[in-house]
This record gives sequence, structure tokens and C-alpha cells, in this order.
Amino acid sequence: MPIITLLTDFGLRDGYVGVMKGVIWKICPQAQIADITHHIPPQDIRQGAIALRRTAGYFPKGSVHIAVVDPGVGTSRKPLAAEVDGHYYVGPDNGLFTLVFEDAESLGLSRRFFTLDKPEYWLPDISRVFHGRDIFAPVGAHLANGVPLEKMGTPLTDPIRLENPQPVRSGDTWRGEVITIDNFGNLATNITAQHLGANSVLEVALCGKTIRGLVSTFGDRPDGELTAMIGTENDLIIAVVRGSAAEKLGAKAGDPVEVRLAPRKTA
Amino acid sequence: MPIITLLTDFGLRDGYVGVMKGVIWKICPQAQIADITHHIPPQDIRQGAIALRRTAGYFPKGSVHIAVVDPGVGTSRKPLAAEVDGHYYVGPDNGLFTLVFEDAESLGLSRRFFTLDKPEYWLPDISRVFHGRDIFAPVGAHLANGVPLEKMGTPLTDPIRLENPQPVRSGDTWRGEVITIDNFGNLATNITAQHLGANSVLEVALCGKTIRGLVSTFGDRPDGELTAMIGTENDLIIAVVRGSAAEKLGAKAGDPVEVRLAPRKTA
Amino acid sequence: MPIITLLTDFGLRDGYVGVMKGVIWKICPQAQIADITHHIPPQDIRQGAIALRRTAGYFPKGSVHIAVVDPGVGTSRKPLAAEVDGHYYVGPDNGLFTLVFEDAESLGLSRRFFTLDKPEYWLPDISRVFHGRDIFAPVGAHLANGVPLEKMGTPLTDPIRLENPQPVRSGDTWRGEVITIDNFGNLATNITAQHLGANSVLEVALCGKTIRGLVSTFGDRPDGELTAMIGTENDLIIAVVRGSAAEKLGAKAGDPVEVRLAPRKTA
Repeated sequence: MPIITLLTDFGLRDGYVGVMKGVIWKICPQAQIADITHHIPPQDIRQGAIALRRTAGYFPKGSVHIAVVDPGVGTSRKPLAAEVDGHYYVGPDNGLFTLVFEDAESLGLSRRFFTLDKPEYWLPDISRVFHGRDIFAPVGAHLANGVPLEKMGTPLTDPIRLENPQPVRSGDTWRGEVITIDNFGNLATNITAQHLGANSVLEVALCGKTIRGLVSTFGDRPDGELTAMIGTENDLIIAVVRGSAAEKLGAKAGDPVEVRLAPRKTA
Repeated sequence: MPIITLLTDFGLRDGYVGVMKGVIWKICPQAQIADITHHIPPQDIRQGAIALRRTAGYFPKGSVHIAVVDPGVGTSRKPLAAEVDGHYYVGPDNGLFTLVFEDAESLGLSRRFFTLDKPEYWLPDISRVFHGRDIFAPVGAHLANGVPLEKMGTPLTDPIRLENPQPVRSGDTWRGEVITIDNFGNLATNITAQHLGANSVLEVALCGKTIRGLVSTFGDRPDGELTAMIGTENDLIIAVVRGSAAEKLGAKAGDPVEVRLAPRKTA
Repeated sequence: MPIITLLTDFGLRDGYVGVMKGVIWKICPQAQIADITHHIPPQDIRQGAIALRRTAGYFPKGSVHIAVVDPGVGTSRKPLAAEVDGHYYVGPDNGLFTLVFEDAESLGLSRRFFTLDKPEYWLPDISRVFHGRDIFAPVGAHLANGVPLEKMGTPLTDPIRLENPQPVRSGDTWRGEVITIDNFGNLATNITAQHLGANSVLEVALCGKTIRGLVSTFGDRPDGELTAMIGTENDLIIAVVRGSAAEKLGAKAGDPVEVRLAPRKTA
């Protein structure tokens, strides 16, 4: 059975997501549809891009990922579809897919991009405010039905890229930032295990607090303790054991984080 | 595959919606189930009616729409099912389906109403507090299985109607109200493109602010600007470009809105 | 079609639930998946246990219930799977399934427990922070595919039990507590119809207020009145007619509740 995922900033209150499912099932009634999240902060393309990168790859190849965080709907921004390593992506060409595309690029995976410009695969009437319903849901459903991507658009070489701040190293210190805060109040940063390499971490500093070293899991420390660890996405995360780091630190996305590495011992 | 939609004021915290899906799948395991919304304000039948009207029609004909906003559960209010233009509706007879029925009436579409009174199609034990689980979910699932509507109830000619305030014209001014506020803080009103007709809009006034004229899409104006436009449901909406009109205006459902039309020029 | 339910404390914001669905559909693409709730308060095993007991039984036999409220993830707590009266349960062995198991015990229903210890049925890489994705979702999907439970683990006789406070009787008074508060502000208590037996209720006292007797449904009393009744789970609940008891009383889970019974009349 074909699989479609939905990621938006629509929330769940207004029925917008339900409408997209109706449009999809009119075209592809057997599609399995999973909500990834609809709680991306309104119009926050970067948070959408991060959430998509973390989740899409857990679905089977052949899945169609429809993502809509679309502040430029109704303007000259183009509708986009792509095939990356056997997964399909459909949504606005505004940087929302940048991190998925860059990961594929860095791993040398196959990727093809198309500007969607064949209205015969859209709803008959296209509003200027809800392309999720009018363009992206129908195109995603046609993909799920097996319509080839190349029939629905024109090849594109260079989708819009989102700026994606990278951590910076100076001496033994990496300077990065908090990029997301999850339901448990855990903070994820843009500093990864790759940045740290074989060095051991002396301390992690953020929001005026300093954490000594890394632990390997939440359960290793007493309740309430502020800890740093490498998370499931291979990124540096800050957590409070059975508590909320976001609350304890008053942290928010964008807050600076410093990691001080232990000087390498000479052999 | 049969399609069932759910619209309630249950929220997603307590598992009530999950229970309805369990009941449905016991009877019709192959049903595709879409959540329209479960965040109707508790017991707000009008908000439920508006959400249902905006969404149900995007699903394929043959879909079964179960809607439960039911402050009178356990009292003398009747359980209702209807077929309107090939769609099925199941829920309390308390006005929740009024707008769907009135739209069908005004378009001359087929419609049949039934009071549900055949307990053999319900759960064996009927509580006095949760008919969504005990009556509406099983009846909806039997409809999805192809049981004819007329086997599950007795024909009814006149379901309970919800009062639905209409805008009023006086001279060149339409007076209506804010009817919904969405996740983006966009305000929808009960003034539609049909009310405005061929006239051009001079200004829109609400919450002590005045907006000059209409724009055609969000992207046409600078960030933060308060704008009025015709939305995707053909209704007058008030929005802030990349911001929240609800927040900027402190607006809420029920707030009055005035539209002043430009006087028609004599030819 | 096989049915899988999900109950977690993950919330819906971060995509964790979506990832679990991706993992499930990679293994069992035809599974129907229902979200029971993802809004269990973070790490509140008891609230998870209560929600699971109230909901799982409404699904058909053969359903697989994956539940993850898992403050001890990555520590020595074991992963668990069980078959209880034809339903399957998968999640951490930390007491989350206690109420389901105890209900089955008291009804004499079949039940088998297993420690999950066959990594060939898990994702290849097991994180120390997200066993919902790495262990429980794949095991649940294999169960849905018909893999026998006993192939995926080792029999266990005594899963971890959660302490579950019971009401206490003293003379004509039952002393219990508020255990959950729902979306409507209705309070559920751990006092049940079984505790009250054939006695009639003189009054219910909580949060400094006293309610005289029980009503049989919300609709029996005027709007705004505080009432007590036997709810759909056969438990004593406190509700405000078309309002919120939680708000009116400032009540929270754990607040004490007293029920004073009418003295039995001598025949």
C-alpha cells in the first residue's frame, strides 16, 4: 500500500489537514497517511526542514512526503517535487527540503528535482492561499498512484536553499546553537558527534550554566540533574534527568552553546 | 476502501477518539479513518457546524462523516444520520449538521434524514455520556460496511436547525461578524464574495482598526501589514502578512466586522 | 487488516510518533494504526496505565498495543511484550501495563508475558534514548505480521507492578482520589460503582465543596451546576453541567475525594 506523510505548520484545530487527506483519498483511496507533525511554528521553514530531515528516512522507500510550511503561498515561489534516494518530496520551493537534499548530496545519493507546472494534476480551482490542498496533496496522491514524477513537472537543477548555520571551531571550543526543543524539554543543538570527533568533552556551556562532560543516557544520573549527551540523531543534546532542560535553563531555539574539548594528550 | 471522518470536541488527550476508532475497526476493519479536528471548543455546536461545512465536501462521495459535539448527550435529543449528495453524516440531532444541510438545500442536492432508533446497530450497552462510542461510531462503521441507512433508523423530515447569523446590509455597509480564527491567527467572517457582488470594497473595519480595500494574496504586501482578502472558502478574511491578525487585533469569534463598499459610479 | 495502537507521552510536535509509524510500515505496510493518545504527561507512568486500561479493550482481539512512557529508557529496565485475552501489548517493563494485567487477572483471562531479548526483531542500531522507535515499534509490527510472540522474547512470570492506590472505607465514608481530568474538565476518581454497592450516596466532598447525591446524566441538571455521577467506566465522576469541574474546583489529579453513604435503613 502506498504511503504518504504530511508535515505542516497548520496545527490540528482547523481541519486543514483533514481536507488534505480528503483530497488525497479522492485520488488514491488506498494510501496509508501518517502525520509527521502539524505543529511546526507558523511559517518557520527552518524548523520544518529540521523535522523533515529527522523523520522522512524512517519510512519505506517509495513513500511520498508532502511538506507545507509556505509563507510565500500565492506569490512567485514555485511548487516543487523531488525524488531523493527512492523517496518522493512535494511542497513549496522555499528551502523546506534543503536539509534532506544536502544530506543526500553529502552521501552521494540519487536526486531529481522538478518544478510542478502541469495543472492537470492539481485541483481544478487553485486558490492563492492553500496550495497544500490544491497542488501538493493531489500531486502527492498521483505519485502514490504511480504517476511518474517527470509527467507532472519540468526538471530543475537548483531548488531554493535555506541558510543553515553551522557551528564554528576556535581552538578547543565549538560554538553552535540550540536548534530544537522537544516535548520533554530536551534541547538539540547543531553540534554533532562528527564535530567532536575523537576528542573528549570537558564542558558544555549554555544559558549561563556549565555542564561537566557527557553522559551516555538519561538514566545514568540522579533526577533533576542537567546533563549533556549524544542523542539519537548523533547530535549534542542537553537534558534534565526526568525533567525539562528548556524550563530549567529558560532556553529557546537560537541560544548559543559552547563545547570545550579536553586538550589532546600527547602520546 | 471505505472512508470515515471524525470531527469532535473531545481533544486528543484522553483517548476518547482512539476508542471510537477501536469500535469502528471492530465492525469495519478496512475503513480508512481521517481526523478532521477534535479541537472544536467544548460543546460549541456552531464552531463544529462551520468546520464540518468547510471540510466534508473534500472527501470522496460515499464517505461517512461522524461528528460529535453533544452537550445534550443522555437527554431527549435524538441521534441522527443523513445522506446528502452521496455523503453520509452521523451524530446528534442538535444543529451540528445545519450548515451542510442548508448548503445542500440551496444547491438543490439530494438529502435524506433518519432518526437512529435501531439499537441492534449500536454497542450492546449504551452509556448516557458517550454516544460517540456507543451509537455514532458503530452506525458509521455499519454504513461504511454497506448497511443501508434506512435499516438503521426512521425517516425524519426536519432535523433541529442551528441559528446561523447572517450579515446585514444598510446602505453601502455590510455588517457581519468574525466566525472563526485559525492556527495562523487569520480571521474568517460570515461576509462572502456573494454579499459583496460586483462592488469594490472601500474599507473593512473591525476591533477599532480600518483596512483600506482588499488584496488578492498574503504575499502582495509587506510583512506585518493588516490586510483583508477573499479566502479559500469564498469568505472575507482578515490576515496579517507573516503574522497573526487575531493577536494584532485582540479579535475573537463574534466580533463585529463592517465592510464599506465604494459607491457605484454612474455610467 | 492488522491493527496497531500507539499510546505515548511524546506529544505530537516533534515527529517522534510519525517516525514510529514509518518503522512499523517498513515491516508491516498494511497495518492500520490508531493513535490512542500522545499527551500522557511526560514520564507519568500511572496516567499512561489508566489511559491504556480505559481504551485498549475497545479494539478487536488481535490488536497490538504499543505503549511508551519510559523514564528509564537506556537503563536496566527491560523491554516487555504480553498477550492478554487475545490482545498484544508492547513497551517498557515499568508498570505501564499493570492495570491491564490486573484487570485480566481479576477476570481470570489468559495472559502471557515475555522479556524482549531477540535483537534480530529490532532496528539494527539501538539508541539509548528512543526504544519506542528502535525496539517497540518493530516488535509490534512483527506481531502484526503474525510472528509469534514467543519467538521474540523469553517468558517472564512477574512484570514490574505499579502501585495503584485504592480507596479506603471507614464507617459510611469512602476516601479516594481524583485520578484523571479530561478535556471537558470532568474529574474521574478511583471510587467505582462496585465500591458503593447498593448503598445510596448522601454526598460527595472534594476541594472544599459538597455535592448532594448522584445524578444519572449531565443533562438532568441546570447549566453550571456541580454534579456527581457514575461515568462510562463505572467510576464516580464529578462534572459541571456544560462547564468544567476542574476549573470550578481548581482540582488536580491526586486531590482527595470523600463519598458519604446513606446509612442503610433497617428493614
